[in-house]
Amino acid sequence: MSSNKQNEIALAAVKLFEQKGYRATSVQDIADAVGLQKGSLYHYIASKEDLLMQIAHQAILQFNEQLEEILAKEDTARGKLEQMIRTHLIMSIDNLETTTVLWREAFSLGEGPQEVIQGMTDKYLNLVADILRSGTETGEFNVTHPRITALAILGACNWVYRWYHPSGTLTAEEIADIFSKLFLDGLLAH
Amino acid sequence: MSSNKQNEIALAAVKLFEQKGYRATSVQDIADAVGLQKGSLYHYIASKEDLLMQIAHQAILQFNEQLEEILAKEDTARGKLEQMIRTHLIMSIDNLETTTVLWREAFSLGEGPQEVIQGMTDKYLNLVADILRSGTETGEFNVTHPRITALAILGACNWVYRWYHPSGTLTAEEIADIFSKLFLDGLLAH
Repeated sequence: MSSNKQNEIALAAVKLFEQKGYRATSVQDIADAVGLQKGSLYHYIASKEDLLMQIAHQAILQFNEQLEEILAKEDTARGKLEQMIRTHLIMSIDNLETTTVLWREAFSLGEGPQEVIQGMTDKYLNLVADILRSGTETGEFNVTHPRITALAILGACNWVYRWYHPSGTLTAEEIADIFSKLFLDGLLAH
Repeated sequence: MSSNKQNEIALAAVKLFEQKGYRATSVQDIADAVGLQKGSLYHYIASKEDLLMQIAHQAILQFNEQLEEILAKEDTARGKLEQMIRTHLIMSIDNLETTTVLWREAFSLGEGPQEVIQGMTDKYLNLVADILRSGTETGEFNVTHPRITALAILGACNWVYRWYHPSGTLTAEEIADIFSKLFLDGLLAH
């Protein structure tokens, strides 16, 4: 088993799942994309669902690992939130096809794998809610409903997979600045 | 042609598209759900894609009509934005299956229908950006990038289809209050 070939297969699958959707992509499509016979492809993958799980799991794992790195550093709640928004948007934008597959296609996974992905998504959400909670305790933030507020922030960040185009004029960093300003200061002129 | 039967078919399709996904739902599944032979179903629908378009179009039309109603009334930019957030969340939550189909499945439409849906989604976005723009002109808001800011707000509101459960403790109205507070005042304690 060549791990290069496995990477190639995963990359081809991401592209196909993003373009056609997971259900509309056949194992034959994936085999064609990497120049293998369908039978040979099964030397590298267990099933199409297994590939989807691998892609979704890797993506959500990376989101969680990045956030844990941010949380491990000494910083204010505000600093941690700004870092979270920045890395979340950069990760989403730098891996637009993967995040599209994660957010749009993972519901096609069977119950078990789907629960794993949902569990990791919930864990991420809880960590963001904790930033808001501890920031409110220290007096930095004024948040009455940390979980719902975290869902609002993450919804805004995740939605980027639907509208970001590399041809746009703003970088991921600039979008992160606009988002941070919105969430920290609000819209109202003071 | 009975319009009751057509409504029944559309409702059954929404349910199936939400649960199984559009691609995984067969015309036979829809026929079974409404107690028709597959052949008879085609008296009422042109194709499965036509049904998806009908559902998505009706949903995005309703979002637009609601927003136009809000904009037609005399109000501050702040008032209009609060109303938009409230009606957007209530519409999303009251029609959770339909909004799930709109946001998750409409990419499976052919190019033409997809452009129609995207055009109406863009129109809605532009109207929200206009609220932010005019609120900034009157000195109510402080928004440097109305379009990106509108995308953040709409992303947060639309994401609700992924996490809202009727078993939760908060109503759509309460979630709207939390979202409005976040977007208007921001997280920072003043």
